[in-house]
Amino acid sequence: MPKFVVTPWEVSGKVDYDKLVKEFGTKLLDSHILNRLEKHAGGLHPLLRRGIFFSHRDFDWILNMYDKGEKFYLYTGRGPSGHTHIGHLVPWIFTKHLQNVFGAELYFQMTDDEKFLFKRELDLDKATGFAYENALDVIACGFDPKKTFIFSDVEYAKTLYKMGVQVAKHITFSTAKAVFGFTNESNIGSIFFPAIQASPCFFPSVLKGKNIPCLIPAAIDQDPYWRPSRDVAPKLGFYKPAQLHCKFIPGLGEGGKMSASQPETCIFTTDSPDVAAKKIMNAFTGGRGTVKEQREKGGDPDVCTVYQYYDFMFEEDDKKLEEIHRTCKSGDLICGDCKKKLAERVKKFLVDHQRKREKAKSVIQEFMLKD
Amino acid sequence: MPKFVVTPWEVSGKVDYDKLVKEFGTKLLDSHILNRLEKHAGGLHPLLRRGIFFSHRDFDWILNMYDKGEKFYLYTGRGPSGHTHIGHLVPWIFTKHLQNVFGAELYFQMTDDEKFLFKRELDLDKATGFAYENALDVIACGFDPKKTFIFSDVEYAKTLYKMGVQVAKHITFSTAKAVFGFTNESNIGSIFFPAIQASPCFFPSVLKGKNIPCLIPAAIDQDPYWRPSRDVAPKLGFYKPAQLHCKFIPGLGEGGKMSASQPETCIFTTDSPDVAAKKIMNAFTGGRGTVKEQREKGGDPDVCTVYQYYDFMFEEDDKKLEEIHRTCKSGDLICGDCKKKLAERVKKFLVDHQRKREKAKSVIQEFMLKD
Repeated sequence: MPKFVVTPWEVSGKVDYDKLVKEFGTKLLDSHILNRLEKHAGGLHPLLRRGIFFSHRDFDWILNMYDKGEKFYLYTGRGPSGHTHIGHLVPWIFTKHLQNVFGAELYFQMTDDEKFLFKRELDLDKATGFAYENALDVIACGFDPKKTFIFSDVEYAKTLYKMGVQVAKHITFSTAKAVFGFTNESNIGSIFFPAIQASPCFFPSVLKGKNIPCLIPAAIDQDPYWRPSRDVAPKLGFYKPAQLHCKFIPGLGEGGKMSASQPETCIFTTDSPDVAAKKIMNAFTGGRGTVKEQREKGGDPDVCTVYQYYDFMFEEDDKKLEEIHRTCKSGDLICGDCKKKLAERVKKFLVDHQRKREKAKSVIQEFMLKD
Repeated sequence: MPKFVVTPWEVSGKVDYDKLVKEFGTKLLDSHILNRLEKHAGGLHPLLRRGIFFSHRDFDWILNMYDKGEKFYLYTGRGPSGHTHIGHLVPWIFTKHLQNVFGAELYFQMTDDEKFLFKRELDLDKATGFAYENALDVIACGFDPKKTFIFSDVEYAKTLYKMGVQVAKHITFSTAKAVFGFTNESNIGSIFFPAIQASPCFFPSVLKGKNIPCLIPAAIDQDPYWRPSRDVAPKLGFYKPAQLHCKFIPGLGEGGKMSASQPETCIFTTDSPDVAAKKIMNAFTGGRGTVKEQREKGGDPDVCTVYQYYDFMFEEDDKKLEEIHRTCKSGDLICGDCKKKLAERVKKFLVDHQRKREKAKSVIQEFMLKD
């Protein structure tokens, strides 16, 4: 089996999620937790049914607290180094679901400082600009404007820095090196950044004047960031942040997660529907060399990026999804048709999302948190 | 000769200032520069005449720019870990003189984050509280409210952090380690802090929308902080900050600079005049074991802390100062009388300063910079 790498800065190779859960020391979402969640939500969200959100830390504790009447808040974020792509939307869609079910406030962090500090060629103003662009996509997901607070690290630095130094005092360079792989050549801003990333685990409790449990839904590559936060939490008198982890949505090429650094295999929310359709028509699939061969031997949906798009976002009906899987394997479904259908759905999605994104421009200030 | 140590965090031993200038790579204030300064000021300030401000970086360049019509701003600061003592006032008094002579704006940084990050037992709120206490002393020195901007790092973090990350991107852990002596056990906030300390070398230029030369008057132990700033400046398109360095005002004990960690040898601006007088009466002097012996052999003003107080702040008249020196050496002046006279002056100074300090409470908000 090929090796895989999962860090907050790199995801490569075919990820073995079971192995990752063991390595990271997180827990799989078991049937007991899923049942509890199902009762609250009146059903299981497709991203849970399909195991895309699959792992957690202390989510059972969050549910216990909620059942005792203590509401939690949600915290997630985005590193604004470019436009949003569909892979980013997956955890946001699920976060919105959690907001709906639990009436939870959401603090959404745009880490423009991080992207600036870690990407040699990126200007700070450009990163902050993308923070606003990406915020439009967050808003387009339909979050409740009364309960959703988006902030750029640079713009909201007063609150973040004040909490950040309190976190930082408890994190040595040794620890940061071990968790994040810093070297002597790392710049001193990047070394401090984990404290800024930890800050929203705690500052909402300060704003509200009482401890509030925090739940972080995010892709599992972000997990290391929260380890120092969890270690520091009791020292500062806060709860440890709980987490829900999802898998990565793959790119349209072979292997790896969807990544803006390979734009041709990546559907941006700002892509014109036709451009997105073209990318899908060029996607890597589990199909055979010729239609004739596929009719005879069938395709392999389990390695197919197109199939995974249906799975992640574009076919909510489990039976219909299963039908795609079955007819692909049997050779009844041909890649061209399958791609065309997906392309239609993605186009429709984009037209709708882009309309909401445009509308978001007039309300963005209601969402942005200011010091 | 005993060894001495001068870093931003420690000053100990008998400091050899000539050696320090060579080690640090700064320049002595020579007669040519002093003449230029004398022309601008219409006379030489006692702290220059007596070599207390004695060293610089690029101060000649600052004067050249000024003569060409480009005004500079002043930047200095204070680490608010406790109340202000008289040693702190020396560079502030000189900074006010520079503000008067050159009509310069002053940015005054209260590094509450630094003190919190470097002092294990210090609370952040306490450090920020001292920032306000210390600001009262700054204001009591008589700075122009229209041209003086005081800020706590924590309260003004939005502006500082935005500039700080830009500085930090150019400073590796290696460099920070070499300059500041960080280790693997240093916390990640302290490692980032030099970027926050560098920020006021540049952010006023951003606020004004054009490059403005910056002059930092400060005790020479702060010099290392500005080395990375000077290295980074051209990379960010700013001028290198120029500096004027002063010596340390000694404590009232034997050796070392005045330090709040030895309160019995340290005159705080908040001390009652009687307490201050008592501390002076207990000061280490250059006197002999008995009055009789002193009458015969004379004292040694050059090792005497009381004499140095006259020199730094409490005898402006050079002739009278010389008279103290002469009569001490000849045995005509006895320590008890000399101390009593100083105590009277310090008491008078404190009464006056504390009155101004009290008045400052009603105007402090005019001085504090807010994001």
